[in-house]
Amino acid sequence: MATAKHFVNDAKTLVRDSLHGLALANPHLALDSSQKIVFPRDVARVRAQQVTLFCGGGSGHEPAHAGFVGRGMLTAAVAGHVFASPSSSQVLACLRRVYAPDHGTLVVIKNYTGDVLNFGRAVERFKSERVNSGHPLPMVATVVVGDDVGVVNPNDDDEGGVGRRGLAGTVLVNKLAGAMAASGGTLEQVKATADYVATHTFTIGCALNAASVPGVGMPRCLGDNEIEVGMGIHNEPGFAKKALEPADALIPSLVAHIVGSAPFQKAAGGTSGRAVLLVNNLGATSNIEMGLVTKLAVEATSAAGWEPVRVFSGTYMTGLAMPGASLSLLVLPSDEQQCGKLLALLDQPAECPGWVSHAHAEGAASVDEAECSAAAPVAPAADERWERAISSAYQSVVAAEPEVTRLDQLMGDGDCGHVLLSGATAILEATKSTQLPLNDPPAALARISSLVEDSMGGTSGIIYCLFLDGLAQQLRSGGAGTAAPLTPQAWGTAMLGALDTLYQYTTARPGHRTLIDALQPFAQTLADTGCPRKALEAACRGAEATAQMQPKRGRAVYVSSEEQVADAGAAGLVSVLKGIVSAL
Amino acid sequence: MATAKHFVNDAKTLVRDSLHGLALANPHLALDSSQKIVFPRDVARVRAQQVTLFCGGGSGHEPAHAGFVGRGMLTAAVAGHVFASPSSSQVLACLRRVYAPDHGTLVVIKNYTGDVLNFGRAVERFKSERVNSGHPLPMVATVVVGDDVGVVNPNDDDEGGVGRRGLAGTVLVNKLAGAMAASGGTLEQVKATADYVATHTFTIGCALNAASVPGVGMPRCLGDNEIEVGMGIHNEPGFAKKALEPADALIPSLVAHIVGSAPFQKAAGGTSGRAVLLVNNLGATSNIEMGLVTKLAVEATSAAGWEPVRVFSGTYMTGLAMPGASLSLLVLPSDEQQCGKLLALLDQPAECPGWVSHAHAEGAASVDEAECSAAAPVAPAADERWERAISSAYQSVVAAEPEVTRLDQLMGDGDCGHVLLSGATAILEATKSTQLPLNDPPAALARISSLVEDSMGGTSGIIYCLFLDGLAQQLRSGGAGTAAPLTPQAWGTAMLGALDTLYQYTTARPGHRTLIDALQPFAQTLADTGCPRKALEAACRGAEATAQMQPKRGRAVYVSSEEQVADAGAAGLVSVLKGIVSAL
Repeated sequence: MATAKHFVNDAKTLVRDSLHGLALANPHLALDSSQKIVFPRDVARVRAQQVTLFCGGGSGHEPAHAGFVGRGMLTAAVAGHVFASPSSSQVLACLRRVYAPDHGTLVVIKNYTGDVLNFGRAVERFKSERVNSGHPLPMVATVVVGDDVGVVNPNDDDEGGVGRRGLAGTVLVNKLAGAMAASGGTLEQVKATADYVATHTFTIGCALNAASVPGVGMPRCLGDNEIEVGMGIHNEPGFAKKALEPADALIPSLVAHIVGSAPFQKAAGGTSGRAVLLVNNLGATSNIEMGLVTKLAVEATSAAGWEPVRVFSGTYMTGLAMPGASLSLLVLPSDEQQCGKLLALLDQPAECPGWVSHAHAEGAASVDEAECSAAAPVAPAADERWERAISSAYQSVVAAEPEVTRLDQLMGDGDCGHVLLSGATAILEATKSTQLPLNDPPAALARISSLVEDSMGGTSGIIYCLFLDGLAQQLRSGGAGTAAPLTPQAWGTAMLGALDTLYQYTTARPGHRTLIDALQPFAQTLADTGCPRKALEAACRGAEATAQMQPKRGRAVYVSSEEQVADAGAAGLVSVLKGIVSAL
Repeated sequence: MATAKHFVNDAKTLVRDSLHGLALANPHLALDSSQKIVFPRDVARVRAQQVTLFCGGGSGHEPAHAGFVGRGMLTAAVAGHVFASPSSSQVLACLRRVYAPDHGTLVVIKNYTGDVLNFGRAVERFKSERVNSGHPLPMVATVVVGDDVGVVNPNDDDEGGVGRRGLAGTVLVNKLAGAMAASGGTLEQVKATADYVATHTFTIGCALNAASVPGVGMPRCLGDNEIEVGMGIHNEPGFAKKALEPADALIPSLVAHIVGSAPFQKAAGGTSGRAVLLVNNLGATSNIEMGLVTKLAVEATSAAGWEPVRVFSGTYMTGLAMPGASLSLLVLPSDEQQCGKLLALLDQPAECPGWVSHAHAEGAASVDEAECSAAAPVAPAADERWERAISSAYQSVVAAEPEVTRLDQLMGDGDCGHVLLSGATAILEATKSTQLPLNDPPAALARISSLVEDSMGGTSGIIYCLFLDGLAQQLRSGGAGTAAPLTPQAWGTAMLGALDTLYQYTTARPGHRTLIDALQPFAQTLADTGCPRKALEAACRGAEATAQMQPKRGRAVYVSSEEQVADAGAAGLVSVLKGIVSAL
């Protein structure tokens, strides 16, 4: 099936190549490509200065964890094959690279059997090798993260059973422990921070489908109207399949599942309070949908009595390209000072590509602000000359509409006549009800331009608008307004200036089979001769000549011609000009 | 089809809700929800201090552009419906919000007809309304970005034709112009920076499939083995469909297409030089694949004679959840000083969630570093007592293998006996060929542990390893080594300590039907009585008792039992212990 396609060379070298790409884009990182370990180039300095920490696990969860290596977060990450723990030898190699003899090292492990055993074995091998070579027992601490509340296992018991899985909450452990280490915390403090986050973060995932594994394919597919809740990050089935429901039903149900779960209730001590919300893209959810999920998750968290004082939204822990999302809630300490300390660690910058930082500002989010500084209103006024011209143009457009429609049906989508008539009608009605400031031509043209946009829409409408906007600016800068009426030559010159404005936004020019083939000759002739009738004749000739032109712009580009006819847009404009000129 | 599912409520409110979510996660942002404009809360300060700039366009390209609003990048972003330009009224409202009367404003427009006309109309309306209300002509500049070299249009000509589309290169324009504005550049400088980037950035996209549009669905599907090259960000077809090929053929062909294109060659002036490479996830490509694409794109760019002095890799400009990627090359100025200035702008931080920053370090990426600080080697040595015990244990495992296999076939996957025999064989061979430091028991046990890991693998292998690692540490801290042999009691005490090590990494305990049901009684009895035979009897009783236990850990959890038999792992361990004890 289509979703099983990948950008891949050789599935066996994918992990190594991918880490190589990460290091190439992030020159502060170095790669041990045989052991698949990513670490900072200045690891020696880091080891000398602070508690170091690393994380890792199977690949396929990027940016976790190599994308979190950098100042303020992880000292290193070690990667296994896709969805498989790194071997204890790889983890041992990582520990040897980052161990800080004077400060100690924290190892963050996701709670999967393979990870726990391989990381554990590496720690014990490291201890043995240090002790066997005459060093004191090394200061290595571990934390195992099992934030999943989407697992329902019949063997679960008070001792933890096969255990809750490590999901996106692991990234919060990396962030907070990393910030504590970078701030000069002792191993005890870094471990205590990690332990707090690991025991107070609760995650549930859901997905619209499983993810295809490079070289393997889709393990299974959900139905067209199915969603799975409690989905893991390795295509493990969730605890429930259900019919896809609107996001405003689904997301609150996920928040309710977290808050209602026994581990959450135990950590929260039965009360409510403040929390950190992490909204995580499992890989292939569009970002526009993630925005919606974030909004609903924030609202549902608040509705459940938990104030989300920090909200993170992005791609932190994926299951390859899984179309899904997970929600994590970190329950903050009720103690004000402890809570403040954790938030300060969270707000510290982390210099790594994977951590989506959110500039923090105090106070609630600012949404739904009213629009500011609209234009000053202009008083309407009547003007007999303008009214006559507008009425005449309207009549002319009405008369021409069937022919314009016929031309557009032959070489377009057939709506050109009706659209033009809509615009003419809107202007006529505004004139009759005295809504236009006709005593101030630039202001009147600006208002007419907006009427045209609202009534005509589409590309041809905006072409008219831009010309009218340009004309209004030309008239204003030419001193038009309440003073004496402009001469025909001055109108022609202003129209040529307005064409320059229009040309900034369209590449259509004379010869391209558009309304410009009528408009430009009209303006040029009026400016040259001051004679509206000659200008109109030039416009008519220009419109007729479009019948011989290859379409280069506008909708006719996409239609093959059978009959050589004039451009509908040019013919429509001629009808407008004809009406105006006949009224002069 | 499955990929047409979405996390959505109502497609009509999706854009607004999604921007709302963005603002909730990023408290430095404010949202005008009626006009769909995102801007900084402190916009008044920004307008007073610097040139302001904004971008926008249809939605569905997130994080573009609202995700790029923040200090150092955009002052605002305005969003249309999915894949549709915002109206000129929306753009005008945005311009009113951000216009900086003392510094001026740059409007960045992607080159699509609707965007160019609507943004253009807004600029002209804004000019008209300012002029009509007595202000001087406002300082508003525009830049239109058309970085696509994947469009082949028969109407293209020297004037630009219907034009190259604005793709991910637009984000580089936003970044560099935004950095110039934040650095105090004048409108002329900001516009010049934007113009340089817009005319020197070249992008090509490719995709494995189109993207489903919320509320609409899939416009079309590529075949199982098809890829499309030159794909746009609105599901526009590319210029070629071809058979899916390995990434190491595909990616170089894309780079070759960019570098070979007429616009690139014109901008490069026929020479080669330095470039910025932007590798962009079109939405639903897994990050592990993006790493591979990045590696190959860097290599292909270098091979084409262009040094990629900065590499950006991430999700910048999407086509909803399109499984695809685009490559952009920004040709840097050959002038050293100008090049340095652009790079400095690129390296400036941008405080917005969408910009994936890459901490920069001078020099080439550091890849393939050799492993550091391996353990000190330990000299092998013979020891007759150890050799006898190891040989005896091996014989006992051989004898027990058929029965262990039978038990595991009844309640497991049947490999337990063979796996144990593999381990015993590896240890025997290492002993016979004098590879173990048998005169130093802690060192010997550490070496045996690694032999077990390599030969046995799997969960049961690592359980043995962790126990042996713990035992080695206990012996070392207990003073074992070249001194007098330990008493049996001391061995028992060390084994109990080793069990504590093991318990750190497994929740298996006595009563859970694992080898611990034999190991724990052996250690306890040996520590209590100092009598190996009594300890062995306790181990045998423990292993037999597993037949009555409900499996709680290990593979038997997943198998339903028909016959009540002992645990294979426990039986296997008993055979090892039996061999050792009989050799004492």
